[in-house]
Amino acid sequence: MEDQGQQEQASPEVHKRIQDSFDRQGLMRHLGARISHIAPGRVHIVLPARRELTQQHGYFHAGATSAIADSAGGYAAYTLFPEDSEVLTVEYKINLLAPAIGDHIEAVGTVLKSGRTLTVCQLEVHAVQDGRRKLVANGQQTLIRVNRPER
Amino acid sequence: MEDQGQQEQASPEVHKRIQDSFDRQGLMRHLGARISHIAPGRVHIVLPARRELTQQHGYFHAGATSAIADSAGGYAAYTLFPEDSEVLTVEYKINLLAPAIGDHIEAVGTVLKSGRTLTVCQLEVHAVQDGRRKLVANGQQTLIRVNRPER
Amino acid sequence: MEDQGQQEQASPEVHKRIQDSFDRQGLMRHLGARISHIAPGRVHIVLPARRELTQQHGYFHAGATSAIADSAGGYAAYTLFPEDSEVLTVEYKINLLAPAIGDHIEAVGTVLKSGRTLTVCQLEVHAVQDGRRKLVANGQQTLIRVNRPER
Amino acid sequence: MEDQGQQEQASPEVHKRIQDSFDRQGLMRHLGARISHIAPGRVHIVLPARRELTQQHGYFHAGATSAIADSAGGYAAYTLFPEDSEVLTVEYKINLLAPAIGDHIEAVGTVLKSGRTLTVCQLEVHAVQDGRRKLVANGQQTLIRVNRPER
Repeated sequence: MEDQGQQEQASPEVHKRIQDSFDRQGLMRHLGARISHIAPGRVHIVLPARRELTQQHGYFHAGATSAIADSAGGYAAYTLFPEDSEVLTVEYKINLLAPAIGDHIEAVGTVLKSGRTLTVCQLEVHAVQDGRRKLVANGQQTLIRVNRPER
Repeated sequence: MEDQGQQEQASPEVHKRIQDSFDRQGLMRHLGARISHIAPGRVHIVLPARRELTQQHGYFHAGATSAIADSAGGYAAYTLFPEDSEVLTVEYKINLLAPAIGDHIEAVGTVLKSGRTLTVCQLEVHAVQDGRRKLVANGQQTLIRVNRPER
Repeated sequence: MEDQGQQEQASPEVHKRIQDSFDRQGLMRHLGARISHIAPGRVHIVLPARRELTQQHGYFHAGATSAIADSAGGYAAYTLFPEDSEVLTVEYKINLLAPAIGDHIEAVGTVLKSGRTLTVCQLEVHAVQDGRRKLVANGQQTLIRVNRPER
Repeated sequence: MEDQGQQEQASPEVHKRIQDSFDRQGLMRHLGARISHIAPGRVHIVLPARRELTQQHGYFHAGATSAIADSAGGYAAYTLFPEDSEVLTVEYKINLLAPAIGDHIEAVGTVLKSGRTLTVCQLEVHAVQDGRRKLVANGQQTLIRVNRPER
């Protein structure tokens, strides 16, 4: 299902930093999402279908679709940030193009423009059923880099 | 916490129609969300804080914030629709204005323009801590009315 | 036509700073736009109807509507900035709610959240015909404060 | 400057329909914009630099950038519509990625999803200086097809 442009891999350090951050996101675990690919400037997140993720017609809820799209874009930006920084979503816009029906959905966040303060990502969500992929949502996201708070 | 402009209530029929639809949304139950108010053209949804809803810093995840904002706007639109119709989100845009920290968050969806085919809603999400409300997200949403599919 | 909430005025210094910047915008003059009100955190811009501003049906072109909305939001943010700073639009989203027909249109930009780096504004555009106002566009905008470049 | 993916051309009928509509847009003429390419599902619009299109720093005003982006997306959608229909912009969102400086800017509107009622387009604006292209704005737009009004 993750078939294109996946040759490139982020460094082990970046990979670990992002996986660690992801593992601290209670929502991603609660939804059942997992990171399926980390490349410099691009992150994929997969979310398998469950009754717990539906809207009133049984499709993936737009909230679930958006949640993994937002996280994919955030981590895509984060792959390009220095180690002592954090990423926050400023805003995003998403179009729901088709009912999200499938065995799972996959969000792909891709950095479009990486600036010193702000990063802009493109967001795509595909529904995958029996191996066929369909674009079900498309969006655009602005993120801000902030210094890591002391812990 | 739900203190302003709540005098107006939707009719029992509309109230039931929306509550029934909400109850079919697996995601809303899974997150722990509930409808707190239904007025003509305005719906409030409350989501109590839980470890399962966090992002990496322990705040409400933008995906949770957005999910209830999207549902609140969708049901706000739905209050004004004829009974044999359904509502679908076309797109939305949301700005995350401040960290969503609190005992709970409350999304308020309000119809801004109700057309024959398309409806535009304003979305607001407040974080409530010790009775104090803070606006943490603000958005705008486009929805489409579709005829109810045969079942 | 500018009838509500206009009691409050920005200081003469802010007023001058904004009018000077506006006067350097070749596009605003070319369209025929003028600032009609400057309050702290809110700016109004008026654009009279002309053949040169139409889309294919003779209404105000969405580009003209958006241009004054973007400027109104930008200057609304700028009213709250220190003197040695500049404002840039990061992004905006606008819904065109109704055909923009009238003697003139008026954009109102209002600061929703003013942060150290980023400001979020609400954008509204009204069409005014024979003294009646109609909301024709509604949007949301993110702006960034930058230090004034040396000149 | 228009160097990629331009082999495909719309039919003469579509080409004429779009050029005729464009010629009725007073704003496009007033700005000095012209259509540079019409393909099925994709339209390019070029806008040469002029003092009359600037913001306060002398760059292209976001309003000018957005105006041609909106028109490019609208006409891209229109290439796929039946002859007796019209297109209206429902909403769009645009990120301004870099200062728009150059000899001219070029907007490219591309249909991402064409539905019976709604169409979603991707918007890109490039600034071109001395033959070098730079992406200065990126956006996403929703459009609606309506039956042509009687004239």
